Amino acid sequence: MTARAIDLAEKLAAFTEHWQPRVIGQFNDHDLLVVKVRGEFVWHQHPDTDDFFLVLAGRITIRLRDGDVTLGPGQLFVVPQGVEHCPVAEEEAHLLLIERRGTPNTGDRATAAPRREI
Amino acid sequence: MTARAIDLAEKLAAFTEHWQPRVIGQFNDHDLLVVKVRGEFVWHQHPDTDDFFLVLAGRITIRLRDGDVTLGPGQLFVVPQGVEHCPVAEEEAHLLLIERRGTPNTGDRATAAPRREI
Repeated sequence: MTARAIDLAEKLAAFTEHWQPRVIGQFNDHDLLVVKVRGEFVWHQHPDTDDFFLVLAGRITIRLRDGDVTLGPGQLFVVPQGVEHCPVAEEEAHLLLIERRGTPNTGDRATAAPRREI
Repeated sequence: MTARAIDLAEKLAAFTEHWQPRVIGQFNDHDLLVVKVRGEFVWHQHPDTDDFFLVLAGRITIRLRDGDVTLGPGQLFVVPQGVEHCPVAEEEAHLLLIERRGTPNTGDRATAAPRREI
């Protein structure tokens, strides 16, 4: 076995696009992803999975229908399954995401970013 | 809803014991935990779950039967289900762990630390 640590900064340095998560590993039946975000995403929900956000750099606000949650580095939030949310970042932010394997990032396969490994 | 971010440093500041994970949240059918570690844990394996380690501060080595993986801040490693491992930290290190809900930290309910929320 050539087991190696996964370095989040190294993975993030390998791409520049926003809202295009990259799969960096697997955990049980979940994908581990890193993503760079800036600006406003779309309102969406995931009917089959909670949505895990950990901020690595920068700051994001996760808009919920009944309030906002703001996260900085070292802060995490889990959007429960089925809860509508809209992530927003005024400046570029870097996140670790965990979702059930194959979850479309927009909640809809028609508009989702392709799942890309890195 | 009074949704709030979970601040990892704040959670870690609330206790001092080593190898006593605290549950800080849930994600799908998993517990999110923070733990402070120092010294050598025990060789063990989890027959029912992968074991997610993300280093927040310090450095750990995860000994595996066929090699070691060393992790610093911002680095993660997933020990596959059923793979024997022994975490070691020369100096105190702080980790985010994710495990299937209720997984005993030693792989054995008889010797496991109690699941404590924080």
